[in-house]
Amino acid sequence: MTVCIIGLGLIGGSIGLELKTKRFSDRVIGVEKNPVYAQIALERGLVDEVTKLVEGIQQADLIILAIPVDGILSLLPFVLDYVTHQAVTDVGSTKMSIAEMVKDHPKRSNYVPSHPMAGTEFSGPEAAISGLFNKKVGIICDMALSNPKALESITNLYMALNMRLIFMSSKEHDLHTAYVSHISHLTSFALALTVLDKEQNEKNILNLASGGFDSTVRLAASSADMWVPVFDQNRENVVEVMNTYIEKMTLIKDLIQAGETNKVRDLIKKANIIQKTLKLNPWNQK
Amino acid sequence: MTVCIIGLGLIGGSIGLELKTKRFSDRVIGVEKNPVYAQIALERGLVDEVTKLVEGIQQADLIILAIPVDGILSLLPFVLDYVTHQAVTDVGSTKMSIAEMVKDHPKRSNYVPSHPMAGTEFSGPEAAISGLFNKKVGIICDMALSNPKALESITNLYMALNMRLIFMSSKEHDLHTAYVSHISHLTSFALALTVLDKEQNEKNILNLASGGFDSTVRLAASSADMWVPVFDQNRENVVEVMNTYIEKMTLIKDLIQAGETNKVRDLIKKANIIQKTLKLNPWNQK
Repeated sequence: MTVCIIGLGLIGGSIGLELKTKRFSDRVIGVEKNPVYAQIALERGLVDEVTKLVEGIQQADLIILAIPVDGILSLLPFVLDYVTHQAVTDVGSTKMSIAEMVKDHPKRSNYVPSHPMAGTEFSGPEAAISGLFNKKVGIICDMALSNPKALESITNLYMALNMRLIFMSSKEHDLHTAYVSHISHLTSFALALTVLDKEQNEKNILNLASGGFDSTVRLAASSADMWVPVFDQNRENVVEVMNTYIEKMTLIKDLIQAGETNKVRDLIKKANIIQKTLKLNPWNQK
Repeated sequence: MTVCIIGLGLIGGSIGLELKTKRFSDRVIGVEKNPVYAQIALERGLVDEVTKLVEGIQQADLIILAIPVDGILSLLPFVLDYVTHQAVTDVGSTKMSIAEMVKDHPKRSNYVPSHPMAGTEFSGPEAAISGLFNKKVGIICDMALSNPKALESITNLYMALNMRLIFMSSKEHDLHTAYVSHISHLTSFALALTVLDKEQNEKNILNLASGGFDSTVRLAASSADMWVPVFDQNRENVVEVMNTYIEKMTLIKDLIQAGETNKVRDLIKKANIIQKTLKLNPWNQK
């Protein structure tokens, strides 16, 4: 089987690396508009060759779009125009706008919307790593709209990445990812901005950064090119979760300010439950 | 040298473990009001013996208070009442209220306020681990108010833990820790509360929790008994940083809602700088 990966960044590059290691495909073609990325991907052996878009599509059995979600929105319809027998998926962090964009495309059933819930705060082909997807969750959306052969191809792809599959609608996907992924990035960005504001006057603050700070601010290094279109496409859910978050933060702040220590304690004890919930979750057993 | 550790939780227990391993002291005495904790600490060899408070103080050369900061506020004056030659320190996450409490104590100069910037989201002696303090930052406050012998003892203690020392006033300490430690915990608590609110209706949300979410919500498991008094004692700084944080979050939300993608991009690119700053920081070289 020949796989064509469009976009050789962190995710596309890591998929290439994995597929070549696992021998899922005998040939991995990359398509990449940034010549420096293409060069690095070739040098690192993330793909076997780099071709132009249409040639890549035509030679492949399975096509993966691994570019930012605004790019997927622009490119996916054109990719489907060239598709004959190929299965096509994208790995974007939003699903509804993309599903909407291609809903009437004659090749819609060759397309399987998906989302591997894995990543790091780094980007580009130099950030590609092996094992990135191992035991993480992969989501496949709106499966009734894809043909069985395409579904089988994409399911096998995720199996090769050693991911655990969950199926849901693209609407559910966008709601859930706002709560367990998009908001985490937003809280990290806000934390970074808060500390950097102060640090202009207080040069030494960052000398004190501890493990706890590192962990909560880690995602603040994430790529604007990837995340801005995600927040934009998932605007309604993202704004809803941010409103709830700001409410919670304001409530805690007001209680601290008022010296209501018992009420602060109750909230913290309620927050503590999340770790129990995460540990009970069979997907999270290490 | 005999060391007495008052409070055998995560921090006190990990200090005991380290001091015994490094042979900094030939005898480590523990004082612990919770008999289950005392038993676990003895069984795990975190201390050599457990005694009552006054006996522990009298037999020790160096005394470490490793209890929540409200406990330190209550106990430190009584500990100093029994001190003759001993050096005393505490490892609390606030410093100003504690410094204020003992500022007129006749044995004030035997006391060296300190704060090892290390920890995990877990608590109790079963959470004590070796290497917890390795290469982390230890802060010593208001050094001019301590006598040279006490300062030397506490400096050597931190050297034995392999920490890097920074000196500042307790006022600076409380401001800086609000920005690089206290707010991180607050953002995690708020994130947990936000997601748990939604999860009552959306059972599957946590199935999707990814590495990014785990990392930002990790601190939400932290102990209420430890953190409530920290936020209370450092109320003014904590409320200031929370106000700034809520402002940043609200700004990002308003821009996302208004579809101002270029402005969201500018903020994210600004937030990205924090990782560069953290990496440039010599204390954070791994």
